[in-house]
Amino acid sequence: MKGKEKSRRPKAVAAERELIAGIRRRADQLLMGRRKSGILTLGIGDDCAVLRPRRAKEIVVTTDLSLENVHFRRDWHPPQSVGHRCLARGLSDLAAMGARPEAAFLSLALPSALTGVWMDAFFDGFMALAKRYRVPLAGGDMAKSTTVVADIVLLGSVPRGKALLRSQARAGDLIYVTGALGGSAAELRALERKPKDFVGKDKLRHPHLYPEPRLAAGRKLTRLATAAIDLSDGLSTDLAHLCQESGLTAEIDADALPVDASATLEQALHGGEDYELLFTASAKTVVPDQLGGVSVHAIGRMKKPGKGPQVQLHHRGKRSALAAGGWEHFR
Amino acid sequence: MKGKEKSRRPKAVAAERELIAGIRRRADQLLMGRRKSGILTLGIGDDCAVLRPRRAKEIVVTTDLSLENVHFRRDWHPPQSVGHRCLARGLSDLAAMGARPEAAFLSLALPSALTGVWMDAFFDGFMALAKRYRVPLAGGDMAKSTTVVADIVLLGSVPRGKALLRSQARAGDLIYVTGALGGSAAELRALERKPKDFVGKDKLRHPHLYPEPRLAAGRKLTRLATAAIDLSDGLSTDLAHLCQESGLTAEIDADALPVDASATLEQALHGGEDYELLFTASAKTVVPDQLGGVSVHAIGRMKKPGKGPQVQLHHRGKRSALAAGGWEHFR
Repeated sequence: MKGKEKSRRPKAVAAERELIAGIRRRADQLLMGRRKSGILTLGIGDDCAVLRPRRAKEIVVTTDLSLENVHFRRDWHPPQSVGHRCLARGLSDLAAMGARPEAAFLSLALPSALTGVWMDAFFDGFMALAKRYRVPLAGGDMAKSTTVVADIVLLGSVPRGKALLRSQARAGDLIYVTGALGGSAAELRALERKPKDFVGKDKLRHPHLYPEPRLAAGRKLTRLATAAIDLSDGLSTDLAHLCQESGLTAEIDADALPVDASATLEQALHGGEDYELLFTASAKTVVPDQLGGVSVHAIGRMKKPGKGPQVQLHHRGKRSALAAGGWEHFR
Repeated sequence: MKGKEKSRRPKAVAAERELIAGIRRRADQLLMGRRKSGILTLGIGDDCAVLRPRRAKEIVVTTDLSLENVHFRRDWHPPQSVGHRCLARGLSDLAAMGARPEAAFLSLALPSALTGVWMDAFFDGFMALAKRYRVPLAGGDMAKSTTVVADIVLLGSVPRGKALLRSQARAGDLIYVTGALGGSAAELRALERKPKDFVGKDKLRHPHLYPEPRLAAGRKLTRLATAAIDLSDGLSTDLAHLCQESGLTAEIDADALPVDASATLEQALHGGEDYELLFTASAKTVVPDQLGGVSVHAIGRMKKPGKGPQVQLHHRGKRSALAAGGWEHFR
């Protein structure tokens, strides 16, 4: 407890400050050459970071928790993957709004024993992804805890009035997804069976350990889509969210789903954490087969609410209600 | 683990959604009448919240962790206090920048057993403070965990170029603090001895359980102060931060310190979580005795770095080095 443990121990007081100074150096390296293009004017080191928004732009904000033994396990996920996934979750939310990343904030709590090698590798994974998408680490908080807790906050910018919402789908719109589905759930299943196989391997084809946020596709969608959401909880759950926010129902065709080569249909329908984009567009809109370097498939259609289920699945000539089967807490 | 526990349990899936719907209702109530004056255009319910910054304003951002058994204890702190303190920490950072609160985001993880009465009371404390300062709850995240984890994110706005920084103090500036110091540490000590005495009591004179962020004073300081920081870690530690960021040293006079009536000099020097503002102003600036309804005292002076310590304390005619004795993690 803060007050209880507090006493004059000036020699040891520097420990947290040194850790933060190390992170600040890494963040500063990342910032090199960035200040001119971004809106961040003051990063780590003050009570707050300062951003100077551009005219005619809106700011979008998202936060996502990554908790040990809930969102990852230290014996399954290498620290680089934990850092990558932590940032990827937030970037994927920006992608779903069609936004450009402007600044990341990380609140990180971890046991003292992990502040060396493990934390360094966590930041290796985090910073590699941050560098790729040119998003500066602008601040955060740090604390000691018994298990790893990471909360990622991302700010992005989007032209005024152009943010992609979940609520703007219209009856008759076609439903699309980027990339392939179920790969993350399939890799997680493999990890459960043979955790050590995956540690240290390269980052190609690791949809669970190193998912790719679809930022380029998201930005192109601001000119094509009526609504969008990222697939974090699973297609069945996230499509239900989109239906609810738009006040509509949906029907999807199992045969049209881009199921990942490693995955089952079940995993494609209900497996979470693919971090692909699910979006709707008018049937009149010409949607390309590829957007921002990733494939796009039409999988169904939005409908007015009626007697049927919120989401109806067509599969081998049969129709059935598709219940939300993805991950939710507090079940 | 996410993937492992996942299965089709549609009846139970609604639990998290219902909790979030309840929070959203409370957040919507809070928003009533707010939209016109604030910059938040879209709150809870999409992948991100959307804010439309005003021209000639900058956005400031801060995040703060509140962890059970690190920042609070459930047997000492009533849930209303945990919610209040969580938000107050972030608001105090905005105060230290001279900013006006625009939106709060809360990432909250807690055990299933606490999602009823405890969580309701947490939000009672959180929302009461949010209402007082007209800050909308615009989003966040929610998860299940073994202990309570709360990460608060606050966005504020400040006129362009007017944010109060830690780094702009000048040699010769006088050092001031708002309010009284040490009251939080003194109340925490009393809590340690007789925890149950405090639960459920009213909110008057509870500097530890219900600290008051100095937002009105902070906004006035944008026209008076050269630098500012909030007193979260303790005067000795936070003044050292300000000295470091400004490249200066400081001397303070123990007899000039506004020590809280319940506190010792030790607690005023090193006790954290008073959430008062520490600021510097030119010796030529006329600083009023009261700012935004809170008293202000001059306690010392900034100096060029020399042979002496970073912070020197004058007490009963003697001079000594004041080592940073406040709270830091990972000591």
